[in-house]
Formats: sequence, C-alpha cells, structure tokens
Amino acid sequence: MNVTVAGRSRHYRTVTFDAKRNAVLLVEQRLLPHQFRIVAARDFREAARAIKDMVVRGAGAIGATAAYGLAQGVRAFRGRNLATFTKHATVVYQTLKAARPTAIDPVNAMNQVCAAMRAGESVEAQQALALAAAEEFANEEVRHCEDIGKHGVKLVRNGMKILTHCNAGWLAFVDIGTATAPMYAAQAQGKKFHVFCDETRPRSQGATLTAWELAQQGISHQIIVDNAAGHLMQRGEIDLVIVGSDRTLGRTGEVANKIGTYTKAVLAKHHGIPFYVAIPLSTVDWNLRSGFDIPIEERDGAEVLGAWGVPLNLKSQISNLKSRYVRVANPTSGARNPGFDVTPPELITGIITPVGIFKPRELWSRRFRLGWNGKSDRQ
Amino acid sequence: MNVTVAGRSRHYRTVTFDAKRNAVLLVEQRLLPHQFRIVAARDFREAARAIKDMVVRGAGAIGATAAYGLAQGVRAFRGRNLATFTKHATVVYQTLKAARPTAIDPVNAMNQVCAAMRAGESVEAQQALALAAAEEFANEEVRHCEDIGKHGVKLVRNGMKILTHCNAGWLAFVDIGTATAPMYAAQAQGKKFHVFCDETRPRSQGATLTAWELAQQGISHQIIVDNAAGHLMQRGEIDLVIVGSDRTLGRTGEVANKIGTYTKAVLAKHHGIPFYVAIPLSTVDWNLRSGFDIPIEERDGAEVLGAWGVPLNLKSQISNLKSRYVRVANPTSGARNPGFDVTPPELITGIITPVGIFKPRELWSRRFRLGWNGKSDRQ
Repeated sequence: MNVTVAGRSRHYRTVTFDAKRNAVLLVEQRLLPHQFRIVAARDFREAARAIKDMVVRGAGAIGATAAYGLAQGVRAFRGRNLATFTKHATVVYQTLKAARPTAIDPVNAMNQVCAAMRAGESVEAQQALALAAAEEFANEEVRHCEDIGKHGVKLVRNGMKILTHCNAGWLAFVDIGTATAPMYAAQAQGKKFHVFCDETRPRSQGATLTAWELAQQGISHQIIVDNAAGHLMQRGEIDLVIVGSDRTLGRTGEVANKIGTYTKAVLAKHHGIPFYVAIPLSTVDWNLRSGFDIPIEERDGAEVLGAWGVPLNLKSQISNLKSRYVRVANPTSGARNPGFDVTPPELITGIITPVGIFKPRELWSRRFRLGWNGKSDRQ
Repeated sequence: MNVTVAGRSRHYRTVTFDAKRNAVLLVEQRLLPHQFRIVAARDFREAARAIKDMVVRGAGAIGATAAYGLAQGVRAFRGRNLATFTKHATVVYQTLKAARPTAIDPVNAMNQVCAAMRAGESVEAQQALALAAAEEFANEEVRHCEDIGKHGVKLVRNGMKILTHCNAGWLAFVDIGTATAPMYAAQAQGKKFHVFCDETRPRSQGATLTAWELAQQGISHQIIVDNAAGHLMQRGEIDLVIVGSDRTLGRTGEVANKIGTYTKAVLAKHHGIPFYVAIPLSTVDWNLRSGFDIPIEERDGAEVLGAWGVPLNLKSQISNLKSRYVRVANPTSGARNPGFDVTPPELITGIITPVGIFKPRELWSRRFRLGWNGKSDRQ
C-alpha cells in the first residue's frame, strides 16, 4: 500500500527481494506506528531471525519472508555439485521453519519453492527457479488479497461502522491484507464508512498497526479498548465485523485467530451483527478435525503485565525496543496469556476467500474450488 | 484489610478520619500497585481535590471521603452563629459534590450527614453530629460489605475459578469491598479457589488494584487481558463471575458498571456460567426507569491511546504520575472511550446485597427490605 514518509507517498510491500544484493527487504514492524523503516536481511539466517524476533509478523508476511529467505539461502551457494547444494537447501529450509514453529504459512510457502526448484537440472537453474517461485508466492498472495477485496466489498455499505480485531491488514501479508481488503476496495469505490479498531491487548496490534494502516490510507477510524465493543454493539454503533485468521479448519469451519476474536464473535451473534472472517487459501488447514486440536500458544506473561509505549517526552526511546516496555500490573502478580482462540462455525456469518464468500461449513464441500490437494498438507 | 509494608502487616481502611488534626486520611491509589502510602487531606478543598484527581476512587470510597470531608469542613468553622455556619456548610457540600458530578454516592453520603446535623441546636453540637454521622456512614458501609460476604460466600465452592472485572474490592469501598467480599469470606472459611482478574483497560484497575489486593491477602490469582475471558470460558476454566456496580436500577435490575462488564455478562450467558453483581444498598438508583437513561461518561481518548506503567529500570518514576504515561497507539489516530456500560437483567444470575441475593427483577418487589425510602433520592 502507499505510505507517506516526510510528505512523499510511495508504494511498499511488507516483504520484497533485492536480487542484486541477494537481500530480503522488510518493513520493521516493531518500530511502527512510531517510525516507518525498511530493513534488509542480508542472509537466510538474518531472515530467520527477523521472523523469530517479530521484525516481520502476520501469517502471509512470514510466509513470503520464508519463501524469499529460502531463495536467498540457495542463491548464496557457491559450487556446481547438486547433491551438496540440496544438503545446503535443507539447512536453509530447516532454519527458516524453526523460526516460528507453530506457523503453517512458512512451511506451505517453502514447499511451493522446493517443488519448483526440483525441475532445475543444474545448481544455477535451481537457484533461478527458487527465486521465481518465491516471487510467484508473494505475487499470488497479493492476488488473493485483491480477490478477497473484490468479493468482500459487497458487504460494505455506505455509512456502515465496521469493527476489526488485531491486524489482518497489509502489514500481515505482502500487500492489501485480508480483513482490510474489503475496506480498501470500498474506499476505491468511493464508499464512506468508519472503522473501529480493537486495541487488541496484549500486543496492541489494532492500536498500533491497523490504526496506522488506516490513517495512512485516509480511512475514517477510531481505536477502542477491547472492552468497548459490546457496549457499542448494544447501542447500535457497529454494523459489521471483519477479522482475519491464523488457521481455518477446512473440515469444520472453525477459525483460530488472535485472542479476543471469539469474544467479538459471541457478542456479534448476541446482537445479530454479521461476523465475517477473511482468509487467503493458504490459511486453510484441511487436516485437523477439531478446533480443540489447534495448539493454543501460551505466551510470556510479561505481555499481559505491561505495555510497549513511547514516553511523550522521550522520542529517543522509539528505536530502543527494550526501553519501551513499562510494567503496568501489580509486581507480585502473575498472568495467563493464551495468544489465540477458536471461533466455532455457528458464530460466523461467512468466510471471505479469494474465490468467493462461503458459510464456514461449506468449505469442505467446496474444497476442490478452494485448492485442496486431496492429501495431507503437513510435513 | 491487612496490608504488609516492609514485612509488617497492619489493618487499613481506604478512608479514615483524624479528629485531632481534622484531616481525612486516604490510601493514595494512584501510586498502587507500585507503592502503598497514606496521604492526608487537610481541609475540605483538599478532600474534594483528592476525589477529583482520583487519589481516591470507587463508589463507596468517594462516598465516605465526601461524608468525612463535609464533617471536616464544618468542624473548621469558627463562630457560634448557626445561620453563618449553615451557609458555610452549604459551600462545603457543593464543593465536594462538584468533585465527581456523575457519582451518586457522595451525595447520598452527605445527605445522611446533613440529616443528622440538623438535630443539633448549636454550632458545636452540629459539628459533633456531623463527624458522628460520617463515622456511621463509613461503618455502615463496612457492615454492608461484611454482609455481602456472608451471603455471597455460599456461591464460592472449593476448587472454583472466579472471574472479576475492574476493582470492586476494599480499595473501592472503606473496607472488604463488594465483589471481593465473598472471596475474602471464602478464604476465611478455608475454601480454595483461584481468581482471574480482568486487566480492565483502559485504566487497568484489575491488573493494578484488584491484583494487588488479592496478592496482599494471599489469594491465588492471575491477571488476564480483557480479550482472554471468552477463551477461558469456552475451555471450561471459569466457573463463576462476580463484579461490582456503579449504579443499579431498582426498578429494572439493570446494572451500570465499568466498560467491559456487559461483554463478560454476554459471554457468561453464552456459556451458562453464573454471573453475579455485588452491591451495597447505596448503589441502588430507585428513580431511573431505563438503563438508556444512565449517562455513559465519554472519557479522554488518551486513556485508550496509552498506558500508565513503570519502566523496569527507572524506579524513580513511580511517584511521578505524569511521567508514567506512555503512548502506545498510532500517533495520528483518535479513540472512542465510553467509561461504563449497562448490563440488562436477563444476563444477571443474581444481585448480592447486604440483605440477601436477589434476581435483578426482584429488587423492586423487595424495595422496602432494600431500604427504599418511598421518595426520590435525588437532589
């Protein structure tokens, strides 16, 4: 999307590749919303570390980073021996996979790259094919998001107030985003609407990333605490909810997403407000048979017990990430910090996919259209 | 309740009166949970400012502060002319009332003091009666909280996990608290249970005050973000919800309380989990006929856009309240910040009062037992 830095507007993707320098270029998301900066991962280990340290986050964005990181890693190989090359590629693959072990997107993305590479008969050919496949993965993801926008834009009517949770915007993908795609498409059609961004504690991605995105695109919005959505729904101030997903079960229609998503779904159901989930095809898990099988990451309690902010009088602290943390809670108390929750299909009005909007329980019957390959996706 | 400072445990009330110094003594709540300190309001204007600046907060605690502040103000009067004295008393009353215009407790408390004073036939007699009435208001509130505990303790069973929202503990009253009263009573009976404290953004009273209270009393507890309760309920980890109330409508059973309470009530209903509200009698509003008539304070957006915390390496910032604020959200975004919400009676399992536990719609039929005086309480 376009970002205005120092008065100049320019188009950016969250993840791109500099073939000349063999570097993965990333929007440094930990500095947002206070500072916009592109950083370079100069080898595949740096790319892996960028995923691990959350320089880049969001299902689609880390998928593209892993795809490019794999291409970057194999391109750095010097020599002509295909067997040695393949061994090296495996090291690169495993390093990138280990950077975010619970994620499925990096694995899917790298599997696509590996499959393409295998057609090459020399090291050089495989290196070229890897980069082409990584570029194709990133481009395909952008097309998916565009298509989500085309289908989802119908849901956005003039004068609507829309609630979204966490960040499923372009920062979480390569461009455009999923939950935001219908909004950006509606804006392009001249529709007027207002977005409430859930703060999304504990990491506040709504207040920091989504609000920054919408402000950059000039979309009318306000931040609310996660506590406020129920009240706004009760008073008739929310007409539509659109969120993203970290994993959607193709067999059941259950949706795993950032903690708090389930609460919004229960509230929306209680008030008869449509609740939509926007996903690219790579987010569908065709294997799991129950939402209870989705591992719910229990994250560090420090996230709950404090916050990351910038003192109003100390701008120098913006880029010093550690010093941005403040302790809010009672120092002698601990926390529970489940990072995700699972929303059952009966609370979901529809799933907005690149190929159309479906009821959650329709995913399985439409599985051929939705790119199911008829076998286990896992490895 | 007992507070352990530097290894020594001592009993404190949130609000007491030093008759010798004619001072209102308050727990400085803005320093909690980082520091426990008692501060003195040395005249009624300082008492009013302590309410306004939130040195003291919580329905019952500001009620007692206003009652003591009124006694303090009239005791400072020098002279014997009753007419001049009464004029002075009116100034004191109005100053304290204006400190928190939307609250009902200070008015109720001061009306009780005024009614008692009027029996005195001299300035000196009225001054003495005012202090006695203020002491009686504070003591009655403590008894109310004790009685809430006696009735509410039946709800707490061994092994239960209890959710509470915001702070309706002893810090919000004179002692014991309302939502916490059944917990403290259960602890005294040797029952084992665990409490989840909702963080309660934007002011984080759950993470700061309730967690501090429970830690001081040695009650097993953890802080969760407001987003997490739905997930925990879904996974069977919450058995009971107890919250407080800022105003409960006697005619309808609707409950106004801190923003986010309504969301927890909807979630509890969805999961079939009992949802109780604990209130002293002074919290009942017998006049309003609809929850939509309760004014919902729209507070400063800065609360939503940032947080108050202590940098881990700068302990000196604890008592510098302004420097504790950090900006979390995107600097170019605004916020909506409704401070309260209204929970309808159909979501409430029961109201725990000092005279028993009632269904919300029973309040009106039990109004004589609940202290309804048969006329408008407002003035």
